[in-house]
Amino acid sequence: MSIITIVGAGMMGTAIGYPAAGNGHEIRLVGTPLDDAIIDHAIATHTHLTMKRPIPEGFKFYHFSELEKAMDGAELIVSGVSSFGVEWFSETMLPLIPEDMPILGVTKGMVNLPDGSLISYPEYYRTKHPGRRMRLCAVGGPCTSYELADHDPTEVCFCGDEPALLRWIKSLFECDYYHISLSTDVRGVECAVAMKNAYALGVTLAVGLAEKRDGKIGSLHYNSQAALFGQSAREMKRLLSYMGAREDSLMLGIGDLYVTVYGGRTRKIGTLLGRGFTFDEAMEELKGVTLESIVIATRSARAVKRKIALGELRAEDFPLLMHIYEIIVEKKPVHVPWAQFETESIG
Amino acid sequence: MSIITIVGAGMMGTAIGYPAAGNGHEIRLVGTPLDDAIIDHAIATHTHLTMKRPIPEGFKFYHFSELEKAMDGAELIVSGVSSFGVEWFSETMLPLIPEDMPILGVTKGMVNLPDGSLISYPEYYRTKHPGRRMRLCAVGGPCTSYELADHDPTEVCFCGDEPALLRWIKSLFECDYYHISLSTDVRGVECAVAMKNAYALGVTLAVGLAEKRDGKIGSLHYNSQAALFGQSAREMKRLLSYMGAREDSLMLGIGDLYVTVYGGRTRKIGTLLGRGFTFDEAMEELKGVTLESIVIATRSARAVKRKIALGELRAEDFPLLMHIYEIIVEKKPVHVPWAQFETESIG
Repeated sequence: MSIITIVGAGMMGTAIGYPAAGNGHEIRLVGTPLDDAIIDHAIATHTHLTMKRPIPEGFKFYHFSELEKAMDGAELIVSGVSSFGVEWFSETMLPLIPEDMPILGVTKGMVNLPDGSLISYPEYYRTKHPGRRMRLCAVGGPCTSYELADHDPTEVCFCGDEPALLRWIKSLFECDYYHISLSTDVRGVECAVAMKNAYALGVTLAVGLAEKRDGKIGSLHYNSQAALFGQSAREMKRLLSYMGAREDSLMLGIGDLYVTVYGGRTRKIGTLLGRGFTFDEAMEELKGVTLESIVIATRSARAVKRKIALGELRAEDFPLLMHIYEIIVEKKPVHVPWAQFETESIG
Repeated sequence: MSIITIVGAGMMGTAIGYPAAGNGHEIRLVGTPLDDAIIDHAIATHTHLTMKRPIPEGFKFYHFSELEKAMDGAELIVSGVSSFGVEWFSETMLPLIPEDMPILGVTKGMVNLPDGSLISYPEYYRTKHPGRRMRLCAVGGPCTSYELADHDPTEVCFCGDEPALLRWIKSLFECDYYHISLSTDVRGVECAVAMKNAYALGVTLAVGLAEKRDGKIGSLHYNSQAALFGQSAREMKRLLSYMGAREDSLMLGIGDLYVTVYGGRTRKIGTLLGRGFTFDEAMEELKGVTLESIVIATRSARAVKRKIALGELRAEDFPLLMHIYEIIVEKKPVHVPWAQFETESIG
């Protein structure tokens, strides 16, 4: 039995503890300073305030003020913060974690550098703490927290630099409903499963366009969704190939694109935009909903635009991402460039 | 203005005439000997009997007995038959088509040879008519007939051996809602968009499994669907790469997989199997529905099994397809091999 300390008591931070708790490990769930209500609720009811599920045996709950106690004897720290907690985790938490302690991050996202490069959060943390040893691993792949908590069959990938460490962490979490691939392609895995947020927004434009056409909310058409899904796969492949990502990472991103088109908040904004809402109107409509997808879409598009300006990528290879940029940054109306998706594979 | 003669008045054979009719071309829709009711209905009402849509101006209707008249002056023949009409088209129609006449086939499918090779219908027709010149092109990509008829944005690929001919055929059909990529990778395109039938069945097992778990028809979970979608993409890539298909063809197959998971009859059988129906029970439930996906799934799986027996492919690279074979050929119950989908990408 191992002790796993999860910092960040949001839905995904909590849900990843379920398979490990089921394997008999002790899960110490520590709220960030923003999670006090979640921790109070968990202590009082042994259920999760926002995920609205019972929390399994094997979990113990800690306020952030009890961090030291929660980390005492831990063999693995899980970063359960959302992408909006990355700076906090970097500045406040990382210096508190011993250099030889393995860290597994569930935070999905990536960062664009001024030269147009896209890097993963583990890489980003290293830029913030040069010289510090950090045994950073991360989770990627199609996984919604509430389905994981419900023991639905789920396939993810743990990535990191140390194969033996990855295999050990896998042994803590692997169970009959949570299946874990391993990869040392950290940038490829993390950027693939981040950039799908941009493209899920792209695919779901077709949901709103169909509703607008039919004048009927809930009307579903699939040729147009499939065209956008296929184009998303093409553009993700082009960008990931350019970045040197492995093919396995692309496939993970394609599975993750699928779940994001169906399972999440990104679909809501894509649908509203497709219906004809301006970006600002759509954001107003969804007030209060955190839209990491917008952050990621903007970063992806800015990175690719920079690489295009540098002559390293071609705009005609990314017509969908360029249109997403027009919509969310330049506030232009939706006008999907269908004809630009055509390819010629001759010879 | 050109004259395009479509042989086969089913839904897809008819629907592909819509964009060309809109472009001002004359569309002569010829029923096969099985299509008399459709042609009678079209003549009487100018609507399609089974697609239940008005047929645009520019269409003329012919019974098969009037084939000669319908072909007089035609510049392109479209084969509109389903995969169950392939033998009829090969034996009865091909000998009637002049050798220099371009042919565009909408029939989706592929054939497995005794050595485990998979070939497209254009290639299959050539094996049946050795020495005969046939200018065979084909359509692949995510397109349901009724959405095409409704002018929904649709992206497909025309493939064939002659680039100039492909570009000319594209000019007849391309319009603001029907977008056409071109490829000379005939086998890659056609087999990618055929084998997705097998995998769509695989993905939709998760739909039925979730319903069974929740005891509720219509219950939807996405982690498991996404896991199967990602695994499908991986296995399709492995098989298509082995066949020498181009990457663009795989991407087309991924878009086509998406539309088939949502738009078609394959979802029905996958869902029933996932709920716990045996294959025979599921087929009984769907009596009367033509299930090309079962034919294709069986062909794909038999081909891969043969290549495995020959030592050219590895069973562990195709766990989902092997399970689909167990379900539909060996009549075994659904027991998705989730753990076998895990990969290691180390180094």
